[in-house]
Amino acid sequence: MKRHLIKTIHEEKIIDTDATVKGWIRSVRNSKKFSFVVLNDGSSQKSLQIIVDEVLPNYADVAGLLMGSAISVTGRLVMGGGKIPSIEMQAKSVEIIGKTDESYPLQKKATSLEFLREQAHLRIRTNTFGAVMRVRHHLAMATHEFFAKRGFFYLNSPIISGVDAEGAGEMFTISTLASDISKAPKTKEGKLDFSRDYFGKETFLAVTGQLEGECYAMGLGAVYTFGPTFRSENSNTTRHLSEFWMIEPEVAFADLDEIAELATDYIKYLISYALTNARDELEFLYSREDATVEKDHMNTLMHVRDSKFMRVTYTEAMEILSKVDPSIKRFEYPTTWGSELQTEHERYLAEVHFKMPVIVTDYPKEFKAFYMKLNPDQRTVRAMDILVPGIGEIIGGSQREDNLDLLTKRMDELHMQKEPLWWYLDLRRFGSVPHAGFGLGFERALMYITGMSNIRDVIPFPRTPKNCDF
Amino acid sequence: MKRHLIKTIHEEKIIDTDATVKGWIRSVRNSKKFSFVVLNDGSSQKSLQIIVDEVLPNYADVAGLLMGSAISVTGRLVMGGGKIPSIEMQAKSVEIIGKTDESYPLQKKATSLEFLREQAHLRIRTNTFGAVMRVRHHLAMATHEFFAKRGFFYLNSPIISGVDAEGAGEMFTISTLASDISKAPKTKEGKLDFSRDYFGKETFLAVTGQLEGECYAMGLGAVYTFGPTFRSENSNTTRHLSEFWMIEPEVAFADLDEIAELATDYIKYLISYALTNARDELEFLYSREDATVEKDHMNTLMHVRDSKFMRVTYTEAMEILSKVDPSIKRFEYPTTWGSELQTEHERYLAEVHFKMPVIVTDYPKEFKAFYMKLNPDQRTVRAMDILVPGIGEIIGGSQREDNLDLLTKRMDELHMQKEPLWWYLDLRRFGSVPHAGFGLGFERALMYITGMSNIRDVIPFPRTPKNCDF
Repeated sequence: MKRHLIKTIHEEKIIDTDATVKGWIRSVRNSKKFSFVVLNDGSSQKSLQIIVDEVLPNYADVAGLLMGSAISVTGRLVMGGGKIPSIEMQAKSVEIIGKTDESYPLQKKATSLEFLREQAHLRIRTNTFGAVMRVRHHLAMATHEFFAKRGFFYLNSPIISGVDAEGAGEMFTISTLASDISKAPKTKEGKLDFSRDYFGKETFLAVTGQLEGECYAMGLGAVYTFGPTFRSENSNTTRHLSEFWMIEPEVAFADLDEIAELATDYIKYLISYALTNARDELEFLYSREDATVEKDHMNTLMHVRDSKFMRVTYTEAMEILSKVDPSIKRFEYPTTWGSELQTEHERYLAEVHFKMPVIVTDYPKEFKAFYMKLNPDQRTVRAMDILVPGIGEIIGGSQREDNLDLLTKRMDELHMQKEPLWWYLDLRRFGSVPHAGFGLGFERALMYITGMSNIRDVIPFPRTPKNCDF
Repeated sequence: MKRHLIKTIHEEKIIDTDATVKGWIRSVRNSKKFSFVVLNDGSSQKSLQIIVDEVLPNYADVAGLLMGSAISVTGRLVMGGGKIPSIEMQAKSVEIIGKTDESYPLQKKATSLEFLREQAHLRIRTNTFGAVMRVRHHLAMATHEFFAKRGFFYLNSPIISGVDAEGAGEMFTISTLASDISKAPKTKEGKLDFSRDYFGKETFLAVTGQLEGECYAMGLGAVYTFGPTFRSENSNTTRHLSEFWMIEPEVAFADLDEIAELATDYIKYLISYALTNARDELEFLYSREDATVEKDHMNTLMHVRDSKFMRVTYTEAMEILSKVDPSIKRFEYPTTWGSELQTEHERYLAEVHFKMPVIVTDYPKEFKAFYMKLNPDQRTVRAMDILVPGIGEIIGGSQREDNLDLLTKRMDELHMQKEPLWWYLDLRRFGSVPHAGFGLGFERALMYITGMSNIRDVIPFPRTPKNCDF
């Protein structure tokens, strides 16, 4: 008999017919003449209750199964008689496929998120991680749908990179010599001779696909990346990963205003898509015992979806912050013009002052990358960050400097080498146009929408300092 | 005036109205009283012809523009009077945004694909690469659509890996110590002390996401990856990249037959999607002067889309090959049972014998990875490769060994360390189920469908030995 997914049974309300389901046991409860087995096959948040009658020949074996065991069940689908009627199956035969034993790490008693991080290969079998990862899937689909509908083309920017694009220096080196340096060719200074390495030079894991995105926007008009990016900074926080996924659209002929609007529409689209396609998952996540978001996070998201995002310049933001009564909120870092906007400031703006996502624009050039377009005031650049309550920055973007002279002047000020970026400068030499783009940290957006408070819990196998298992 | 994409103008047949378009000049042809400017904005293969009348105040400047220059034009859209009527624009005003000069590398005279590889930052501005990369986009969209429709969840498997999953050893090492080994901590043997490296151990660029895919299939039921994978083999061929994208579905409760059917449906879906959504691009590519596919490649693809894929076992394939008349085709490598199926064999089967994609199954276990399910004959495994004409293998897959004892026995035979894969073995300890999956090399599928003959021309920025520019 053809296998049915449990999702299909619930969605299409399939009853009064025989069917086969396969999945893993979430719980077994034995009463006098029946065993109640809750089966989940991963297709949806909802499981299927199966009633196993003691008359079944292998009843004793089935009733003795432990959580996590895999079975195939053929039986009749009927509407159950509970307070909230739900479809259930009356088993006609049960095949035991794969058992577990008492050593199975995922036992019924509440397993902490921290413990589950050490069981990253198994945690997807829990309600919580099933929910999170299905939401992750839906937000990835929403991303492709959003950009494709608007005529953007998906760009796979390279992961192995020969340049340090952000100038931040926090990059992983890639090498085929490093595995055994005792046998590797070395320079006079005792360094690895990268000229004899696989790529003939030192190479890195990309921190961004933006520069290549700019190349492609100049040909295809509007592109977006959606791929892994890397930082080797030694940050052990709940908001940082060494490997994370970013979405980076880049649009030719666009300015900062258009890109801010695009970013706003995109965030709203993500929220809307999740509310439509993963409602069961969100409801489950917000009602978890150790959830750190408020129970009405769904309403908060709906409010954000339907509201205009606040927009302030950096200068206005600093004015707001400098007027905050210190008896209400005392900041650790200064709030004078020319100081960096710190996480405490970002969170105050989004969570306390505006209680909404807020777009901060026009930062002092000193805090931002070399490629951002200089404003006429000569001291700020056409940059934006989008800050959301609970998380802080989830998007950073800018209009790019499209004037060759101004761009090279800025690179000189920063003592940057221009030679490795000859190709990037070519974009300003040949048919240069105004253009702009942004980067969304996918996991931060996921934290915001799922309400999970640790970024390690919204990516399947997190990589952080001293942590690369599985 | 709101900007129109050129794609929209052609698709929605917008005429007898004023509009603004922005893009890059593909050619300028000056006649007595007019200049004919062909403008492309990347949104589609089709450009828009613009007629610039000499009465325009900046006519001389516009008529003197070189290919590659960026302009914004406002004018009236009308149906042109050529042999094949096409929409064109009568310019009312032209704004010059960014010029090029004679040093612009992409000049009109046919630029070879080889030369363009050195201009990977600019080549997207050509008709050929615009076409290829839009097809790439559409096949990525087709991939997500295909799997999502069937209830698969998208999995982002990790890029930074602590294990050598395939046991092939052709991996890149990732390190924060390698950049300057003169200052790095070392072991007594003179190797880098990876215990003091960023992750506390040696780490690699992932060659596959399959093992993590298996973990997730055991929770979500059916998953697929679509991400970059890496090989450090020193292969300088037209079919190898050091960094390439793979799609790896993994399905719980599935056997080899089901996965072979899934792979067939997927390839057909890709073809069908491209024929529907990127027809202009394919027509252009197949009619290129230096195209290496036949002009009727479109018919070939339609035939493949509508036909049953051939299916043979490795044993049958060897029988076919061993019976080939050497006066027709003389193989370099042996065709006796127990010999490897070489590229020459694969291509003969797909191109000469079957003239169709062919699925070869049940290979001798010696040629395949440790995790493949052993057949009752004890000497072949439940593996499959899909071979396509012109390319060779584009898919490799298998049913996985789900029996813990058999799997560990095979690992012992191969002298594999079991400790690093404790988590992978856990999948067979707890709720183990039959499961299967495959990997499609995205660029090889793209070569097949676009008809491009060098894999470096179907990925935006190719990485190969000694080659990591941009």
